[in-house]
Amino acid sequence: MPPTPARITAVDTYDIRFPTSRELDGSDAMNPDPDYSAAYVVLRTDAEPGQEGHGFAFTIGRGNEVQTAAVHALRHHVVGRPVREVCDDPATLYRDLVGDSQLRWLGPEKGVMHMAIGAVVNAVWDLAAKRAAKPLWRLLAEAEPEWLAGQIDFRYLTDALTPDEALDLLRRGREGADGRTARLLETGYPAYTTSPGWLGYDDDKLTRLAARAVADGFTQIKLKVGADLDDDLRRCRTARAVVGPHVRIAIDANQRWDVPEAIRWTNALAEFGPYWIEEPTSPDDVLGHAAIRRAVAPVKVATGEHVQNRIVFKQLLQAGAVDVVQIDAARVGGVNENLAVLLLAAKFGVPVCPHAGGVGLCELVQHLSMFDYVALSGTTEDRLIEYVDHLHDHFVDPVVIRDGHYMAPTAPGFSAAMRPESIDRYTYPGGTFWAADLDTTEGRAA
Amino acid sequence: MPPTPARITAVDTYDIRFPTSRELDGSDAMNPDPDYSAAYVVLRTDAEPGQEGHGFAFTIGRGNEVQTAAVHALRHHVVGRPVREVCDDPATLYRDLVGDSQLRWLGPEKGVMHMAIGAVVNAVWDLAAKRAAKPLWRLLAEAEPEWLAGQIDFRYLTDALTPDEALDLLRRGREGADGRTARLLETGYPAYTTSPGWLGYDDDKLTRLAARAVADGFTQIKLKVGADLDDDLRRCRTARAVVGPHVRIAIDANQRWDVPEAIRWTNALAEFGPYWIEEPTSPDDVLGHAAIRRAVAPVKVATGEHVQNRIVFKQLLQAGAVDVVQIDAARVGGVNENLAVLLLAAKFGVPVCPHAGGVGLCELVQHLSMFDYVALSGTTEDRLIEYVDHLHDHFVDPVVIRDGHYMAPTAPGFSAAMRPESIDRYTYPGGTFWAADLDTTEGRAA
Repeated sequence: MPPTPARITAVDTYDIRFPTSRELDGSDAMNPDPDYSAAYVVLRTDAEPGQEGHGFAFTIGRGNEVQTAAVHALRHHVVGRPVREVCDDPATLYRDLVGDSQLRWLGPEKGVMHMAIGAVVNAVWDLAAKRAAKPLWRLLAEAEPEWLAGQIDFRYLTDALTPDEALDLLRRGREGADGRTARLLETGYPAYTTSPGWLGYDDDKLTRLAARAVADGFTQIKLKVGADLDDDLRRCRTARAVVGPHVRIAIDANQRWDVPEAIRWTNALAEFGPYWIEEPTSPDDVLGHAAIRRAVAPVKVATGEHVQNRIVFKQLLQAGAVDVVQIDAARVGGVNENLAVLLLAAKFGVPVCPHAGGVGLCELVQHLSMFDYVALSGTTEDRLIEYVDHLHDHFVDPVVIRDGHYMAPTAPGFSAAMRPESIDRYTYPGGTFWAADLDTTEGRAA
Repeated sequence: MPPTPARITAVDTYDIRFPTSRELDGSDAMNPDPDYSAAYVVLRTDAEPGQEGHGFAFTIGRGNEVQTAAVHALRHHVVGRPVREVCDDPATLYRDLVGDSQLRWLGPEKGVMHMAIGAVVNAVWDLAAKRAAKPLWRLLAEAEPEWLAGQIDFRYLTDALTPDEALDLLRRGREGADGRTARLLETGYPAYTTSPGWLGYDDDKLTRLAARAVADGFTQIKLKVGADLDDDLRRCRTARAVVGPHVRIAIDANQRWDVPEAIRWTNALAEFGPYWIEEPTSPDDVLGHAAIRRAVAPVKVATGEHVQNRIVFKQLLQAGAVDVVQIDAARVGGVNENLAVLLLAAKFGVPVCPHAGGVGLCELVQHLSMFDYVALSGTTEDRLIEYVDHLHDHFVDPVVIRDGHYMAPTAPGFSAAMRPESIDRYTYPGGTFWAADLDTTEGRAA
């Protein structure tokens, strides 16, 4: 009898919440008091000990139990699959998850169910990279172009990007990859920081953190705007005075405005030379972003952290609606769909500057940008990964920032694993932190 | 002491599933085996007995527990609210639900969380109409234009529809309303039927049901297409031979195609004179629908049952991407958001032909079209409500179809209430049907 192949034996889920709202970390015009949370998933296997895949969907508090239930609802597609098959070709599971004809009704390919798919798919890539003994960026950068192209679901994309075009982009992307890998390992990938600019911070804190960002080597910072124009004028003036004329200041309205308001407000802040306006309006409004972009140039338009899937990214590019594509590692259907978005951006020649922050988003998304640099776009020009200095200590392989750059991860996997003691402490509502907190503040975090 | 006002005391949820997949009812190119389901909600009150609000999100089986959990996650916004306040101004609750800054991250305004909001909001309108002792269509048709305009969230719409324009449309819509109410009560609202055209039905069943549809007075039928072109050619030929040249045949691809494929396939079926092609591609693809519409005219393009919110409907209209707007009563954020979509359609002069079928979608959406006829668009020209003869017997006030028309409901409310014995029988997995079924077919419906 041949030996039984190792299989995925369980899809364990955890509702993990951090009480970040108490410090106004992460506060912006639409999200005044987020409790950064994760619907966390561990794929258990009966392969040798330690062969697990970790992934998560990021949420900001209430409803994380719904997100966790959505991950749980996918388990029948995952449990029992041979580990090798799943890791050799994550696209098969990805397609099965997206294609579940009954679950599809709950999206399709958007919202809670799609983020759940992303969490599971990312956990598979974590497992695959661990088995390959490579950090994910390196697994992707060293993969055969044909295999990578096979990881992409071209459904609804072929009017903008065909499989042949994708393959061609991937083949050309590999030229000179070794040199870029060496440079990446030496100097890292450029970052910008949002830490100074949360809306809930007062001007002193903004001044102090902006000065520190420049001292730390960042060449771009980001300010939250959109709640009050006079405040925004004052905060932009303050920040510009601190960072000087050469450090870029991006501004971020977090979807606060209608189209006419976005145009007025952005133009009112133009005297401070904002580099981009991020999420000026609804992430669903492709035509609205196109209208805003035409009216606020030379200020660039950026969006993507809430863009639901590759189909909306496709249209943002087709319509000339964005100057900057902001992928998020945990919003769309995982690595597979983000590969499609990176290819779309490469085809249209638009730079990708990922959204990060939250819980573990920096840890994940750095791998995607590093792959893009080494083996797809081949450049870091006008490309930076967002950096926010929150919650990294809860991760086993936290990001390393040096002189305003993300240093390339070297540990195998997708850097997604949270420390066991953090999981124990912040699982909601039974973890040690919440059990004690809910005991003393009955109902406060309900 | 003044008397305590009546309040909403509970948000009770039920996971209800019907085993429709066993008969291939509802089968199409993307949904081969749906089990029509409802995440059903009852708003309990301490007002006089019987003052309850009923609503639901429609799903097609697996994942209905996630949808139900999402409705449950909204209860803190609802329980304890005074009944009169909520019913006098449903917009306040609607805005609070859409605006929950933490839950918003799970959409925003799309997918599972947004459908949950729709279920709760619709239940409020059911309660409000019962308290007003009117069927919902009549409550809306007789409401003051200023109040109706106040029910709409114009966020992200003002580049296409301003509050003043909406008010103007509503005021003009009221002219002649009494005459239209009388005509509606006499002859009803035109319907078309999808019952003959499910993809899983053989040609004999298609022939028999198409002939019966014509005999029953329907002037339009709909066929599912998109799985196999030869089959579609044969089925369209068969249907056209049965119904003759004057009955309209709509075709529906249920999102099966990419843009180039949609154009090729639709044009290949053009010889049978299809009236519209429905859901030719992803509901997220505004630009794709616009390209298809340009290439398949004079065949019309219809979509909407999976369109996530008013922002995407806005763009479909702005881009000239659709000839027919297909609202769905249970996909977007309830009556309030559907009022916005009806107003957008009126502004752009595009007819609304609602999606229905499923569980109770006919019962709900008839109210919206009847309001539109009496007090907004003022016409039924080129407008029909979809009709499917499934599952109506589970409702307390089922739709009444006569000579191819929906007869106007006269019972107070939104026709949303399911019969208690149906709830008891089909609650999953503990209801009497499922308990017995799961007992004998262990795991079959897991």
